[in-house]
Amino acid sequence: MELYIGYFAGFLGTVCWVPQAWKAWATRDTSGLSLAANILFLLTVTLWLVYGLLVTDWPLIFANGCALLIVLSIVAAKLKYK
Amino acid sequence: MELYIGYFAGFLGTVCWVPQAWKAWATRDTSGLSLAANILFLLTVTLWLVYGLLVTDWPLIFANGCALLIVLSIVAAKLKYK
Repeated sequence: MELYIGYFAGFLGTVCWVPQAWKAWATRDTSGLSLAANILFLLTVTLWLVYGLLVTDWPLIFANGCALLIVLSIVAAKLKYK
Repeated sequence: MELYIGYFAGFLGTVCWVPQAWKAWATRDTSGLSLAANILFLLTVTLWLVYGLLVTDWPLIFANGCALLIVLSIVAAKLKYK
C-alpha cells in the first residue's frame, strides 16, 4: 500500500510539470513564473539525478532524468519569452 | 558524500518554491502559472507526506509538510489573482 503511494507520488511529481511546460511554450506567457524558483528546482532535480546515479537507484534516475528535461524546457521558455 | 547530496536535494526541493510563492503574492501576476501543474504538484507533495507518515520517515514528513504549505499558497494566489 505505502509502496504504491510512493510510486504514484514519484510518477506524479515527474509528469505534473508537463502542463506548465506546455502552457509556457503554447502561450509564450511566462511573466508569472519565477526564474529563481525554476532554476533552483532545475538544480534540485539535477542533484536527485546525481544522487540516483551515485547510489544506482533506477526509479530515481528515470524519474529525475525525465523531470530534468521538462524543467529545462520551462526555464528555456522563461528565458526566451521574458 | 551521496547522503549529503540527497539531504541537500531534499532541502532545496522544499525551499525552491519560496521565490515563486513570494512573486505570486507580491506581484499578483499569476497569468503564466499553470493551475493544472500546481494542483498536480500539490497532490504530489500531499502523497509524499502521506507516504512519509505511513513509513514514519521524518525527513520526508518534514520536507513535504513545509512544501505543502508553500505550494498551497501558490495555488491560493493563482485562484485569487487569476
